[in-house]
Amino acid sequence: MTDAAFVPGHVTAFFSAHPDDDPTKAGSRGAGVTLADGVTVRLEAGDGLELNGEELEIEAVDRVLGALRANARVVAETDLPLGSGFGVSGALALGTALVANRVFDRQLSENELVTIAHGAEVQAGTGLGDVVGQARGGFPVRLEPGAPAHGAMDGIPDRRQIEYVTFGELSTEDVLGGDTEELSAAGKQALSQLVAEPTLETMMAASRRFAREADLLTPRLEEAIRDVSEAGGDASMAMLGETVFALDTGLSDAGYDAERCEVCLPGAHVR
Amino acid sequence: MTDAAFVPGHVTAFFSAHPDDDPTKAGSRGAGVTLADGVTVRLEAGDGLELNGEELEIEAVDRVLGALRANARVVAETDLPLGSGFGVSGALALGTALVANRVFDRQLSENELVTIAHGAEVQAGTGLGDVVGQARGGFPVRLEPGAPAHGAMDGIPDRRQIEYVTFGELSTEDVLGGDTEELSAAGKQALSQLVAEPTLETMMAASRRFAREADLLTPRLEEAIRDVSEAGGDASMAMLGETVFALDTGLSDAGYDAERCEVCLPGAHVR
Repeated sequence: MTDAAFVPGHVTAFFSAHPDDDPTKAGSRGAGVTLADGVTVRLEAGDGLELNGEELEIEAVDRVLGALRANARVVAETDLPLGSGFGVSGALALGTALVANRVFDRQLSENELVTIAHGAEVQAGTGLGDVVGQARGGFPVRLEPGAPAHGAMDGIPDRRQIEYVTFGELSTEDVLGGDTEELSAAGKQALSQLVAEPTLETMMAASRRFAREADLLTPRLEEAIRDVSEAGGDASMAMLGETVFALDTGLSDAGYDAERCEVCLPGAHVR
Repeated sequence: MTDAAFVPGHVTAFFSAHPDDDPTKAGSRGAGVTLADGVTVRLEAGDGLELNGEELEIEAVDRVLGALRANARVVAETDLPLGSGFGVSGALALGTALVANRVFDRQLSENELVTIAHGAEVQAGTGLGDVVGQARGGFPVRLEPGAPAHGAMDGIPDRRQIEYVTFGELSTEDVLGGDTEELSAAGKQALSQLVAEPTLETMMAASRRFAREADLLTPRLEEAIRDVSEAGGDASMAMLGETVFALDTGLSDAGYDAERCEVCLPGAHVR
């Protein structure tokens, strides 16, 4: 079992939630960034899940292993923090699907594997749009919610460096489990704005407005976004984590000790 | 004007033709391979199109420039031969769309640019499925014909080296301009086979059968495919060119002096 899969980190800039009883139809509309910093997933004999050497339980990963009838231990590595808006659980689910398909010779297509991982994330309640964004790569725009058979994607045709700083965690489950009506109204407006003018600058502006209208900003996030703006840069908040991300060198220019990486053009893939 | 776009070469393994009066609905079903060998496109002041230093006229490129109201000279470079089944005209059209969108700040999305390039190729009669495959990257499967709003894509989740040898040209226009009924029946059967078992080995077997049933093989192609098979490899014919492509080192193993490259995971992108 030497095969591996790589799945990029995915930062959502804004979104609207679209629950559905059918997990392949449930999902989100929105837009974001995929990062060359991501998650590498391998399988070993055994069971359980190990991330950066620590034992972990991620329901979406268990569901993917079950769907692929794959009895294996998942061994993953990442530079990204968990629970901070980088889609690590989605990356683990999709990476597990891609590598289990190879190791166990399940002969499924990319769409089928994305559907399994997306459905697993939705059923676990840990994400609504990371998996389809991570599969596409680049700057993915989710025009219609759901797995490939139901959803529709577009992308912003650009290539830029991204910087990010994480202050702490926010629980996706808490936010998505609560009343998402106001949030989704703001998310739909943000998507209309981006579809009319699909550029990264518009995405960032729409993201900042979404964060304010959905009342998601913590004081630290507000301060960092303002600092970047005052330094002439373009930053917003990762949905959902206490994380700021910026185009180019926006955070370093404002004096922050930020991680920097390229956008991930290929999206998730086997290695 | 220093921006550039890269578009991978695209080899179609099999296809069925789906004409339509609406060029965004017209297209093909089928599957193929995108290559890390591709076309780099830049714009300069002036007009006309230059490929590897030679003046050229490609109707699809003129149509893209017109659609984007882009007055510029297109300067392109490629290692791939023209008219040999690598989708060079589609790559020129899509690369022109991507780079003109940046240089002239047209603020169009990836889907919009793919739609313009696909429509231009269809209207010029020079291709039906290269552009959407080149945009996706990897091993693209065209489940439904047409530009993104109408078409549907999948992919084979693999990563392999590809080899190819070109003996000469075949005219896409001659084949697509003639009676395509038998060819399309064979293409539909090949796609059913691949959808049931989406692996590269199945794609190659389906491609060989398609080439025989659609009566497209020249003696040189037949010989090379047989040679690779006898050496234990997996080869077929590029649709449409007098070109043989093989998985891994299939052609070298059979004694051919072949070009070798990686699959292009990112698909077309700005640089």
